[in-house]
Amino acid sequence: MNIKFVGNILGRILLLEALMLIPSTVIALVDADGTFRPFVGTISLLLIASASLYRITRDNESRRYYAQEGFITVGLAWIFLSLFGAMPFWFSGQVPSYIDAFFETVSGFTTTGASILTNVEGLSRSLLFWRSFTHWLGGMGILVFMLAIVPGGSDSSYSLHLMRAESPGPSVSKLTPRMKSTAMILYGLYFVLTVICLLLYLLGGMPLFEAFCHAFGTAGTGGFGVLNSSMAEYSPYIQWVTTIFMALFGVNFSVYFFIMIREYAAALLDEELRLYVGIMVISTALITFDINPLYGTIGESLRHAAFQVSTIMTTTGYATTDFDLWPSFSKTLLVLLMLLGASAGSTGGGLKMARVLLLIKTLKRNITQSLRPRAVRSILINKYPMDEQIVQNTNAYFSAYCILTAAAVLLISLDGNPFTTNITAAIACFNNIGPGLEMVGPTCNYAFFSPFSKLVLSAAMLLGRLEIFPILALFSKRAWNRAL
Amino acid sequence: MNIKFVGNILGRILLLEALMLIPSTVIALVDADGTFRPFVGTISLLLIASASLYRITRDNESRRYYAQEGFITVGLAWIFLSLFGAMPFWFSGQVPSYIDAFFETVSGFTTTGASILTNVEGLSRSLLFWRSFTHWLGGMGILVFMLAIVPGGSDSSYSLHLMRAESPGPSVSKLTPRMKSTAMILYGLYFVLTVICLLLYLLGGMPLFEAFCHAFGTAGTGGFGVLNSSMAEYSPYIQWVTTIFMALFGVNFSVYFFIMIREYAAALLDEELRLYVGIMVISTALITFDINPLYGTIGESLRHAAFQVSTIMTTTGYATTDFDLWPSFSKTLLVLLMLLGASAGSTGGGLKMARVLLLIKTLKRNITQSLRPRAVRSILINKYPMDEQIVQNTNAYFSAYCILTAAAVLLISLDGNPFTTNITAAIACFNNIGPGLEMVGPTCNYAFFSPFSKLVLSAAMLLGRLEIFPILALFSKRAWNRAL
Repeated sequence: MNIKFVGNILGRILLLEALMLIPSTVIALVDADGTFRPFVGTISLLLIASASLYRITRDNESRRYYAQEGFITVGLAWIFLSLFGAMPFWFSGQVPSYIDAFFETVSGFTTTGASILTNVEGLSRSLLFWRSFTHWLGGMGILVFMLAIVPGGSDSSYSLHLMRAESPGPSVSKLTPRMKSTAMILYGLYFVLTVICLLLYLLGGMPLFEAFCHAFGTAGTGGFGVLNSSMAEYSPYIQWVTTIFMALFGVNFSVYFFIMIREYAAALLDEELRLYVGIMVISTALITFDINPLYGTIGESLRHAAFQVSTIMTTTGYATTDFDLWPSFSKTLLVLLMLLGASAGSTGGGLKMARVLLLIKTLKRNITQSLRPRAVRSILINKYPMDEQIVQNTNAYFSAYCILTAAAVLLISLDGNPFTTNITAAIACFNNIGPGLEMVGPTCNYAFFSPFSKLVLSAAMLLGRLEIFPILALFSKRAWNRAL
Repeated sequence: MNIKFVGNILGRILLLEALMLIPSTVIALVDADGTFRPFVGTISLLLIASASLYRITRDNESRRYYAQEGFITVGLAWIFLSLFGAMPFWFSGQVPSYIDAFFETVSGFTTTGASILTNVEGLSRSLLFWRSFTHWLGGMGILVFMLAIVPGGSDSSYSLHLMRAESPGPSVSKLTPRMKSTAMILYGLYFVLTVICLLLYLLGGMPLFEAFCHAFGTAGTGGFGVLNSSMAEYSPYIQWVTTIFMALFGVNFSVYFFIMIREYAAALLDEELRLYVGIMVISTALITFDINPLYGTIGESLRHAAFQVSTIMTTTGYATTDFDLWPSFSKTLLVLLMLLGASAGSTGGGLKMARVLLLIKTLKRNITQSLRPRAVRSILINKYPMDEQIVQNTNAYFSAYCILTAAAVLLISLDGNPFTTNITAAIACFNNIGPGLEMVGPTCNYAFFSPFSKLVLSAAMLLGRLEIFPILALFSKRAWNRAL
């Protein structure tokens, strides 16, 4: 493995994180709430780490950079980003346990939105801003961000492997031949959509600071809020804006790219998009019907149903109401939607619509084949045959997904909490959603878990966000052997 | 589709069921408990149905019989066997609802052991016997039984397709070139092991009638008992016999065949066997340690742990204690074991060890491949490369397994029961186990579900036992179109 090149990219990423801490540092300075020194301290540590990595790796000549290096870089980058990103919380003393601060930061970068805070409103504005900003950075991918903004380089091979390892979904859409341009287009779209969301929040009378934080949380499909009641106290207008924008950020960004270049047919006939919209509409209708006796008017039931379906499917995790009090059918449907997640190439997590589509189509093909063993067929997505390797990987991914969720449930069950709590906590973390049922329901938090369980759930969030392989690659003896 | 041949086999199966009702009818006659007429009535209906099918299909000349016909035959056979098998319960009035009787019979044939009876001890002995006997018939497969005992025929192609459709696991072990001999060997081994189990029960002082019923339940890994307390009141000796024999019936029968023909190495080096024993031993050790504070002595903890691990992994469902009261970790481990199930080619249900092995190996291969994209490797089981088609089917099966379990959970959640109850009920039925947690825990029953949910769970049991395809094939338009 080309460990020097990996170290070099890590150094750049840590430098980027130092820059990203500046807005929060400014707020800390303005508010003078005692968090200025924690932020400056963290930035200093990042600069030292980044400079050291630069010194160690600057004499690197090899440009060898394959899939393996891509996975290891992304895996290490996310762990280090979280380790450093947790420091302001801990240094300030507002989150006294470093493990709690780490959990919160992982939850931020992975856009999970699960919190160990029992009182969000007690946190300084600078920390709240950083917490929400991690959602925005993690949503589209921080290495993709680096590719988009760092000048120079026609290193398209390393860009491709980084994009592949960090971007969600079974395959990466190369919007343009150059990965750097693809990264810039993605972040451009992401930026524009976020600004529109922000403006609509401001139009609805949301204060500027809250509008920023919520726009980050909505865009990254994260779910950290600034109020203990999440979105419940905001107006129906703001709740609808959130519903719609969460849904928009859960769409594969290549759809927006096609709209941008006016290929409307390619955008609207996309099978993944149709599945995503279809499931969303049907689930919303079923839940509206199921919860109507609780709310009385169809309008209010629809608003809560649509919000909750959108927040769960896009794996955001904002709440307008405690769905743990809903009828069993609606709760179960929401848990199942948690497993599905949003679209590939969106900021949402979960299994992803593209994979669900592939799994269903594989299943159909194999039923046909077992009835008529001589028929051989390819799987078509958007009328193009899928590479069998991707089909195989998707199936293997699904197994890994189930095995790791099961392992997480088992490990956190050592705390002795009830089964529904454990299983929905593991699902909510692995799929980067945030709230589950019972003790981790929408009005609750993750504070009560043991430090060990918090680490397990942090690992689950990272595994879920990075789609398993980058984290597993870190434990591959083969990858490291070649490096040393 | 060769619908006449399918009808012909169905006719034979119904005749066989009529014969299998005779022992219970004799008990009904001896006990004179009012169940004689219900049994005779059922037998008469079966004979009429069988004779009608024979008349309609006797002029069939086509011997075309492919995978499709195999699936349809097995799917229809199991549904009709259950529809008729439920009649004695209903005719006698002891189970007033036909849907309840159907649920109980499906639970019997599929060796699930989930019961709608709130008071097992209130049932007549003739009905108890029939209920347990369905376990024994369903355990090894009733069409396999027909192949083993019906004389004549070198129709090895239709035998193969029937065996494939009814036998559990990703591939059928052809112990001998002729499927009829394979069926005879399997049933021979099954019969001998059942008799040994029966004798050991009698040695432990169990009354003859109870010994028969429990031997059927153990051999078929079913779980219907004759006492409300299941196995809790029996001596530790009997509990240990049950533990060991459940585990033995959960072993792939080809292992016994290899032992029989003295190929000990082939038997003991079998990877599936090692995985099965390994998981069993480790889980028992972990649970013994976890529950020791509850029972005080290691001996008693070990007995309960081993019994519960054996009963869950083999998907039997007998109980010696209420594991719903155990610590969260042990409960969670048991739920995960429910998903794994026993070995392929055993009488146990679930996903099966062979599939778990294949899924893990596919996953390993794909991790290696994503790190080093140029490596191409076969999956080796017992040192032989697996057919890629089987690997693919196993992955597709796993998707279907998850989708159908999720669908069952969603449908039964309409009753409004809690999440843990619904999810463990669906898992326990789909994997043919019986007890779950909370309202379907080991000391509870399924009586409280709505008729709709009972039908959903009956379908889940059939789908689980027949490994999905035979039941799905019934809904395949393509299969039926060609028939008409």
